[in-house]
Amino acid sequence: MPSYGGHDAVAVSAEEEDKYYTKRTAFAEEAERDEFMELASIEEIFSSEEVPSWQKQLTLRAFVVSFILTVLFTFIVMKLNLTTGIIPSLNVSAGLLGFFFVKTWTNFLEKAGMLRQPFTRQENTVIQTCVVASSGIAFSGGFGGHLFGMSRTVAKQSTVANNSQNIKDPSLGWMIGFLFVVSFLGLLSVVPLRKIMIIDFKLIYPSGTATAHFINSFHTPQGAKLARKQVKALGKFFSFSFLWGFFQWFFTAGENCGFVNFPTFGLKAFENRFYFDFSATYVGVGMICPFLINMSLLVGAILSWGVMWPLIAAKKGSWYPAELSPSSLHGLQGYKVFIAIAMILGDGLYNFFKVLGCTLFGLYNQLCNKNSGTVLPLSGRSSSESPLSLSYDDQRRNQLFLKDQIPAWVAVGGYVILAIISTATLTHIFSQLKWYYIVVIYVITPTLAFCNAYGSGLTDWSLASTYGKLAIFTIGAWAGASHGGVLAGLAACGIMMNIVSTACDLMQDFKTGYMTLASPRSMLVSQIIGTAMGCVISPCVFSFFYQAFPDMGSPGSAYPAPYALVYRNISILGVEGLAALPHHCLELCCVFFIAAIVINGTRDVAGKKWARFIPLPMAMAIPFYLGAYFVIDMCVGSLILFVWRKVNKAKADTFGPAVASGLICGDGIWSLPSSILTVLGLKPPICMKFLSRGANAKVDAFLKGS
Amino acid sequence: MPSYGGHDAVAVSAEEEDKYYTKRTAFAEEAERDEFMELASIEEIFSSEEVPSWQKQLTLRAFVVSFILTVLFTFIVMKLNLTTGIIPSLNVSAGLLGFFFVKTWTNFLEKAGMLRQPFTRQENTVIQTCVVASSGIAFSGGFGGHLFGMSRTVAKQSTVANNSQNIKDPSLGWMIGFLFVVSFLGLLSVVPLRKIMIIDFKLIYPSGTATAHFINSFHTPQGAKLARKQVKALGKFFSFSFLWGFFQWFFTAGENCGFVNFPTFGLKAFENRFYFDFSATYVGVGMICPFLINMSLLVGAILSWGVMWPLIAAKKGSWYPAELSPSSLHGLQGYKVFIAIAMILGDGLYNFFKVLGCTLFGLYNQLCNKNSGTVLPLSGRSSSESPLSLSYDDQRRNQLFLKDQIPAWVAVGGYVILAIISTATLTHIFSQLKWYYIVVIYVITPTLAFCNAYGSGLTDWSLASTYGKLAIFTIGAWAGASHGGVLAGLAACGIMMNIVSTACDLMQDFKTGYMTLASPRSMLVSQIIGTAMGCVISPCVFSFFYQAFPDMGSPGSAYPAPYALVYRNISILGVEGLAALPHHCLELCCVFFIAAIVINGTRDVAGKKWARFIPLPMAMAIPFYLGAYFVIDMCVGSLILFVWRKVNKAKADTFGPAVASGLICGDGIWSLPSSILTVLGLKPPICMKFLSRGANAKVDAFLKGS
Repeated sequence: MPSYGGHDAVAVSAEEEDKYYTKRTAFAEEAERDEFMELASIEEIFSSEEVPSWQKQLTLRAFVVSFILTVLFTFIVMKLNLTTGIIPSLNVSAGLLGFFFVKTWTNFLEKAGMLRQPFTRQENTVIQTCVVASSGIAFSGGFGGHLFGMSRTVAKQSTVANNSQNIKDPSLGWMIGFLFVVSFLGLLSVVPLRKIMIIDFKLIYPSGTATAHFINSFHTPQGAKLARKQVKALGKFFSFSFLWGFFQWFFTAGENCGFVNFPTFGLKAFENRFYFDFSATYVGVGMICPFLINMSLLVGAILSWGVMWPLIAAKKGSWYPAELSPSSLHGLQGYKVFIAIAMILGDGLYNFFKVLGCTLFGLYNQLCNKNSGTVLPLSGRSSSESPLSLSYDDQRRNQLFLKDQIPAWVAVGGYVILAIISTATLTHIFSQLKWYYIVVIYVITPTLAFCNAYGSGLTDWSLASTYGKLAIFTIGAWAGASHGGVLAGLAACGIMMNIVSTACDLMQDFKTGYMTLASPRSMLVSQIIGTAMGCVISPCVFSFFYQAFPDMGSPGSAYPAPYALVYRNISILGVEGLAALPHHCLELCCVFFIAAIVINGTRDVAGKKWARFIPLPMAMAIPFYLGAYFVIDMCVGSLILFVWRKVNKAKADTFGPAVASGLICGDGIWSLPSSILTVLGLKPPICMKFLSRGANAKVDAFLKGS
Repeated sequence: MPSYGGHDAVAVSAEEEDKYYTKRTAFAEEAERDEFMELASIEEIFSSEEVPSWQKQLTLRAFVVSFILTVLFTFIVMKLNLTTGIIPSLNVSAGLLGFFFVKTWTNFLEKAGMLRQPFTRQENTVIQTCVVASSGIAFSGGFGGHLFGMSRTVAKQSTVANNSQNIKDPSLGWMIGFLFVVSFLGLLSVVPLRKIMIIDFKLIYPSGTATAHFINSFHTPQGAKLARKQVKALGKFFSFSFLWGFFQWFFTAGENCGFVNFPTFGLKAFENRFYFDFSATYVGVGMICPFLINMSLLVGAILSWGVMWPLIAAKKGSWYPAELSPSSLHGLQGYKVFIAIAMILGDGLYNFFKVLGCTLFGLYNQLCNKNSGTVLPLSGRSSSESPLSLSYDDQRRNQLFLKDQIPAWVAVGGYVILAIISTATLTHIFSQLKWYYIVVIYVITPTLAFCNAYGSGLTDWSLASTYGKLAIFTIGAWAGASHGGVLAGLAACGIMMNIVSTACDLMQDFKTGYMTLASPRSMLVSQIIGTAMGCVISPCVFSFFYQAFPDMGSPGSAYPAPYALVYRNISILGVEGLAALPHHCLELCCVFFIAAIVINGTRDVAGKKWARFIPLPMAMAIPFYLGAYFVIDMCVGSLILFVWRKVNKAKADTFGPAVASGLICGDGIWSLPSSILTVLGLKPPICMKFLSRGANAKVDAFLKGS
């Protein structure tokens, strides 16, 4: 299921892990539920339905609906990007809502007797592909990561490399230009390989396959009924969540006001960022994320804010100067950021080598046993099917997948022309980025794009952010600190990530299209249109937030954008070396780097039974920097789902994702009117304040006196 | 169903109306559900079960359970008394919990093989009777009304009649003594009439009948299963409500802190006391009270706090002096209190004459057609049964009801002796109360007790508080202001109300006993034991609250005890005349007095179909004094029930009362540990404060500076 915002974790690999597990559970269930269909041969069920030509699959209504959903999801993803960076898979709601909108429209037309073209699953796939591609840009564009990491706000938090050469404040113009010239290269680089990957290698693409199941099930009669019920649940919780956001707004007149500062577990815990902040979004996210992720987050939160930071804070004056501002990276903040980075890098490195190993091993097998059609032990299902005994489903799918060709010269020619235009434009946008850096990137990238597309076909795991970090280190070091290396590194990261992640998006979509008999051409066109939409909408939404919340990016604000700082500091580390770290920080970083590798290794060795009790290092690292509040929200979500499952498992499994999506979408959409209110200068009337008993007595005396 | 705290509205007749409707709906459903039983002849179902002798009906375990439940319910009733004075019928929960405790105990013994006496419905009736009698004292004792109205705190709020002669502060000793010498007279005064009322007149006693249905249904197998499910729901919401109360506590460090001051609809609305105060109790109360009551309260709240008080406040300086304290009865507060009193008196008077008319008409019919066994058209059901065709149920019930006699000389002799002791004691407690006042009261009272018992047998409507007000006016005026007439009036009110209300309690219980084959003797004994318990427990609980919250009784505090002030002012009006009222207040009072009568008349004339759209004046008057906050709570409760019924009517009707009881009981019981914390001097750590944007900016500047 090509998740918008990436099957494929773009910004930071923590999300990869997140989404990986997210999808695994959500879609494993999906797949189980649809098992009976698999048995009954899906294409036989659909055999009476005519497959429309590829031009007919690309309807105007599909793109109108895609546009609406893109705006919705871009707001949500942007908000998540800028708050914690944890982004759950919203595919289920994208699929549901897309189906709902078009179905309502076609039903209406049918009743009016004006329906000329029925709603097909191919059209649904087109919507899904388009929405995923466009809202994916909100994520892979790095608005909460490398792109925003270039800004003055983030740069100011560090004392090194904050000269004007290493700063580029976000502005609508160059962001749109940048995205346009880099985002399409990824598509073109893997188009020629689609037959090899999908038909010859029979790669699984778990997310793409699950999406296809999902869409196929909607378009059978029972599926449609269930979908409508799910949409109803989603709508209900959408409204609740929206109204709750609205209600909360009234009580936020001033800093430290409102429900987001509710010291649920007391003021002492609040100081250490342990509190429930009443965010419907993260309760929903917690419901979608598997228990293991939430528990890993909780372990990380307790370890860091419960144990380590208080201990390190006690060393104030000895390990680091006491007079530093709380946000200085040379003080406590430095430990938080760099230890988190160490853990993220350790986890990323481990998985990079793991997936690389799988990829090479898989390729080797593929090339040795080309005729047997088997891939690798990892991809269980398809290995049992030999090409001699192709099922009806496979025959029909192969036939339609191969019908509409895309000539290889279009792809190759397009790539070369685009790369030239891109190089010329990029050197204009970033003067620090020399043209030869870019050429090197564009020469190497197609190989990496293939690696990533192949790896995610096997494991559902996109390593885009790891490739991005690779680019930071290499290009940053090449440019050097004095020549704006920090900025060059971040820009290179953006180029690399965009290409690598869109490449694997496209391949997932091809898989979905293959299984829903949608034409590869319509997939490509939809992906191109979606990408173009995303390149415009995402920067606009980001600018909107940026206008509305000028303190965005500073720690403690409503939108701290944690990964912006993380990315910038990775870049600084790459360029300047380890000199910037406070005392003993390097030792601690090494410990956590190694711990991340060891824990991951243990998880792989321990086997499934025990692995589910071992936390994920990537997830543990996230609260290191942010605190436990969103973890508490997510655990509340987990708890709700847990209790619901105890009471009624079937209902919880069917409606849980819909309810969670409703909570996330409602709160996400509230950020639109909330930002508008801020832009208009309308301020909330009341402050809900939390004071200790002593402070309250003082304030009461003061208020009486005044 | 003899409600603890009165079937029979004691303190203020608003509660009468309340409870009247409450019972009507709750029990109408109960009755409908049990209709099939009625048809199948209940006593035939139970014919295989032996009826234990009256001594065996009075078990130790029954009284232990009664004691526990009494403490529970006394806390709840006391809290309600002291906050708003609206007390819903808790009979359902008393019945449920009584059944649950004994059944658990007997089941346990049965499994251990040690059960000697099975749990019978007669025993259950004994528990119900005892709990109702004992916790009824908490209500009819006037702890939130006439008794507390004698205290200095309440007296201080008025400028007249606050000399020491008209003040008597509550203290444990005299309160227990007072209750003991007055509470038993009511029982003795109507005991000899039980056969006439129950068997000859066949009075309905709707509450008593409903209780009997309830108990009978529990003791059939399906009934027990349902009851257990209901208890489970009750327990769940009990815990929730208790924990919610606990959680709220942490945020109340200081005045105007915490959820009880949550300006849900903004600060402007909050100033006019329109806000949701997150009280689980009143949400539960709202779920039990019928929609009409809640809507009447809302209409009253909007009329008074939304329209009238702001208008009158604008006349500040012209209608009343501007420099008065907000709680002075010569200012705005005076309008609030006296207009509410006028409306309550108007409603009370109307209903007094209405019920008196019914009583006289019924008695007249009764005496004229003695043999036909019919009562009056009002009591539909029994009129169809002639004594010649007595059903099996009636035959068996008559037989058992007449088996255990209580000699008339015991009752009469007891009454005379008790009256003498009582007179001697009371003149000691209240020096202002001359012995001849008391003798007059005791001579007249048996007649009034009979009237009330008969009237409530017909209409389920006890007029105890109206008789109480009658006593205030007559005795108060007789004593005169200079001789402590205000205090004498309040004391006389206490005597009158206790007698009149316990008399009708007892008769309701006889009816319940009649229908569950419980002996009249065991009923009387249970009622006596229950009354004795109540005479000790209620003053103790009151003193506990009084110790814990020294500002109890002052407006704006956590326990404003609104009716204490109302009763005292009625007494002042009676003694001092109308001179105490501020400008134009008398005119407004007359308008509302007449309006109350007209509205009531319209309701009676309009017929059932339209009457349900006409608000009840009594209910409208309550928020006049208190504000809309508890009305909002109750409307939220109504709304929850309304939605629940839309979703699943059967479930809502079965579990609604249990859920509501759980909410009420949990929050009520929380007041026990909360009071203990206050007594121990443990203060909550956090203040959740609500400030306007302007004030917040000032406070932030102040906090930064300090």
